Amino acid sequence: MPERRLFVYDRDRHSESHPERVVTQRRDQPRKFEDISKWQIETDVAIIGFGGAGACAAIEAADAGAEVVIFEVASASGGSTALSSAEIYMGGGGGTRVQRACGYQDSTEDMTHYLLAAQGDLGDEERIRLYCEGSLEHFDWMLARGVPYKDSEFKARAIVATTDDGLLYTGSEKAWPFRELAKPCPRGHNLEIEGDNGGPLFMKIMTEQVESRDVRIEYDARALCLISDDAGEVRGVVVRIDGEKVSVLARKGVILCAGGFVMNREMLATYAPETSQIATPIGNPFDDGTGIRMGEAAGGTLLHMNQCFLTIPYYPPSSLTFGILVNAQGQRFINEDVYHARIAAHIRKQVGESVYLIIGEKYWKEPNMLGGAIVATGETIEEVAEEAGLPVDNLSHTVQAYNEGAKKGVDPVFHKQADWLAPIESTFAAIDLTPGKHGNYVAFTLGGLWTRPTGEVRQMSGEPVPGLYAAGRNTCGLPRRAEGYASGLSVGDVTFFGRMAGRRAAHREGRG
Amino acid sequence: MPERRLFVYDRDRHSESHPERVVTQRRDQPRKFEDISKWQIETDVAIIGFGGAGACAAIEAADAGAEVVIFEVASASGGSTALSSAEIYMGGGGGTRVQRACGYQDSTEDMTHYLLAAQGDLGDEERIRLYCEGSLEHFDWMLARGVPYKDSEFKARAIVATTDDGLLYTGSEKAWPFRELAKPCPRGHNLEIEGDNGGPLFMKIMTEQVESRDVRIEYDARALCLISDDAGEVRGVVVRIDGEKVSVLARKGVILCAGGFVMNREMLATYAPETSQIATPIGNPFDDGTGIRMGEAAGGTLLHMNQCFLTIPYYPPSSLTFGILVNAQGQRFINEDVYHARIAAHIRKQVGESVYLIIGEKYWKEPNMLGGAIVATGETIEEVAEEAGLPVDNLSHTVQAYNEGAKKGVDPVFHKQADWLAPIESTFAAIDLTPGKHGNYVAFTLGGLWTRPTGEVRQMSGEPVPGLYAAGRNTCGLPRRAEGYASGLSVGDVTFFGRMAGRRAAHREGRG
Repeated sequence: MPERRLFVYDRDRHSESHPERVVTQRRDQPRKFEDISKWQIETDVAIIGFGGAGACAAIEAADAGAEVVIFEVASASGGSTALSSAEIYMGGGGGTRVQRACGYQDSTEDMTHYLLAAQGDLGDEERIRLYCEGSLEHFDWMLARGVPYKDSEFKARAIVATTDDGLLYTGSEKAWPFRELAKPCPRGHNLEIEGDNGGPLFMKIMTEQVESRDVRIEYDARALCLISDDAGEVRGVVVRIDGEKVSVLARKGVILCAGGFVMNREMLATYAPETSQIATPIGNPFDDGTGIRMGEAAGGTLLHMNQCFLTIPYYPPSSLTFGILVNAQGQRFINEDVYHARIAAHIRKQVGESVYLIIGEKYWKEPNMLGGAIVATGETIEEVAEEAGLPVDNLSHTVQAYNEGAKKGVDPVFHKQADWLAPIESTFAAIDLTPGKHGNYVAFTLGGLWTRPTGEVRQMSGEPVPGLYAAGRNTCGLPRRAEGYASGLSVGDVTFFGRMAGRRAAHREGRG
Repeated sequence: MPERRLFVYDRDRHSESHPERVVTQRRDQPRKFEDISKWQIETDVAIIGFGGAGACAAIEAADAGAEVVIFEVASASGGSTALSSAEIYMGGGGGTRVQRACGYQDSTEDMTHYLLAAQGDLGDEERIRLYCEGSLEHFDWMLARGVPYKDSEFKARAIVATTDDGLLYTGSEKAWPFRELAKPCPRGHNLEIEGDNGGPLFMKIMTEQVESRDVRIEYDARALCLISDDAGEVRGVVVRIDGEKVSVLARKGVILCAGGFVMNREMLATYAPETSQIATPIGNPFDDGTGIRMGEAAGGTLLHMNQCFLTIPYYPPSSLTFGILVNAQGQRFINEDVYHARIAAHIRKQVGESVYLIIGEKYWKEPNMLGGAIVATGETIEEVAEEAGLPVDNLSHTVQAYNEGAKKGVDPVFHKQADWLAPIESTFAAIDLTPGKHGNYVAFTLGGLWTRPTGEVRQMSGEPVPGLYAAGRNTCGLPRRAEGYASGLSVGDVTFFGRMAGRRAAHREGRG
């Protein structure tokens, strides 16, 4: 099993070397348009951030005829998209070329129903429908940009494909209750490259696409604040380049694609304390909320800032799925065959502190990425319960009932698929996954600026902030809760709605 | 049992007669100070809203020597405080006069530990400590204002005291896990008046207190927006009185005490969709988010807008506590002796849609306020499980294990107190409480403007918006989640931090 290439951030080092990134030390207030006498850069569209969202916005804005400048705080493009596997969740409409080649006839209706069910009350129906209806076009757009997808399926239960196969199940489509609500279909599209190397390849292709257009790119350029006029319209952005503050006039608009805020520990503790207490942030060091703060200060408003992608890497090895998860009461609480982030979300909902994986020797595999602690082993489940401090009667009943069903290939209570059912047998083990104590919980943020699907940043009144757009984790986008997450939804959202924001800004009537 | 006097709002009627209250139809943008040539009203401190927070802020500001004007949109004082029971959560420091008379020696440490545990990751430690350390003084302040508390205890498990007794348990202090974290003590202080009539009496006293001071009160005065200067400092407020827009100069500051947003269905659906789907809003019609929107538009930022007080009136009759709550898997998920809102919060965390109260004939009492549907009755629990569509084996084990413990006076798994333990016996019933289907779920909002405990409204950077203060449900205050709520925490927060905001604003150096 290859090492997971997640960028895990050293927060202490960060705060010393970049004190200005701490939220209380910057006001992020927009500069007044009327006070600016000289523009160092003039363009139609200014894009802040050159990750997946910024790249897609730039390509579309340029293709729509707009003059575009990208400002990227790092010395290279990539953002957190380059650190991800860059899977994209796509399908519907009869299936993408890859889906069809693999024998799947996906429907837009099934895809829509799945995403609506997965996002639940938090789902933005308009956004989900647009995404599903535009998904085949999005796939074709990716192909036309040169993104390679192989017509083959990766069949293991995995967080990411470790082969160059083009398609895999990345969510909870086959798991209860979703399989009853929409016909399951794999929709995770993986780049044709061995290992978990999709992100760098994807951003290499996107960067070349941007470079092949007439787009100006400024690296090492830190956006400081927006520029707004007296009427509240965004007219540009102030950027620091080579130690100088540069005033950028954006005739059509500014698109914020500067990522989420998981690396800003103060913001995370303020807005998402339930996650900040237990999870290691994943992303790039510049996921520090800069774009969210700038947008908010210019009149945008925040949405679902408490929501995070939170997970525990429960697989691979997929054999752990044969275990059961129990809470402090020795009871199961979720079908263990769902997507790993859905598991983490439900772990966080249990009363009492402890959560354990109960598993038999046959299916326990090491190494794994759980970060759990084996706190009890024994020849009987009662012994294990005793040793782990779990209620003996309840755990014993839980295992007995589970085993009875498993022998018949059914899980009448939590509806785990038959593929993952087998009696739990001696030697038994209890693996402590209690958040804050054990378990490799990792997170990134899903809350951000409230936008229309077009990327228009909204005021609290619902109206747009004129001239201001945003996409990607800078916004509260399509994926809004860990419970309904699937791999490929964030890069899917980032690219799909990044493109839309680019087009929208480019078509806006400019003013100087 | 007296009818609960909660104001349940007719939302359809509301939107027709007050279309301007719909969030998308108002921008709430501050007016520019520099554009205002004439001030119709000049004062030191302008207070928006004459409920509990506004009244306390006005009294303290006036007592600190400031000139004060209150603007209230309704034709009378009261706000949602007058619709509540006006219990206040107080204690610590050896106990209030009432606590001591009833034989309780409360400690500040226990009170603090309880509130910290109850608020969990969402708790604001600074705010909680200030509240607990100042609680005895707050009680004495109430006495000095003429608020009557009788030195007697109301001992029933109830949502509100229906007698004139002065003290009752209003939270989950005696329930697991809290009793292990802090010595239990009743801290709900109830006004000396028969029936659930504390709110009107409390606001009558507070209104008289305000009127006895040199405070100008403008009723039927709707605040439209704040007035900010070029530097972002709040300098006043625009109010509509008799159809005229009135510019109010506030030399020291504006205090927003205009309530939460539970009556604004668009805002509720946007920010708290998980609650808006299932709960009836409680409050007064003007809990429409006006103050939150005005404050946000003037540079304040939002915090925990998804959080609501959500409850199901599970008692009285307290005998229902002898039942057990089970989820779709036929498993218990909470000790049923906790505060009702903690029960509702955990109901919302269950996988699968259904939640049932399983209870024996002996303890089922009608009328009750649950709003549940009796979906199955039977001589055996297996019959009931079958009829209700619950997993027979699991429910049967749940009841059997519960009964075995109950006979011995213990609940080894969920730790319900012995007082509420008795075997569940035939005739059995299953009462469907599935949210969105059955159950009288009611809610009000706990999210709002981010403030310092002093009432200073914070920008996203953490710095205050100069000249702007807020208190009560207009803010994200001390109670931040249903899971850790206790009756008396909201009015406690409203009055305690309302006072603090009044003092803070009054002591600010004025300009004008």
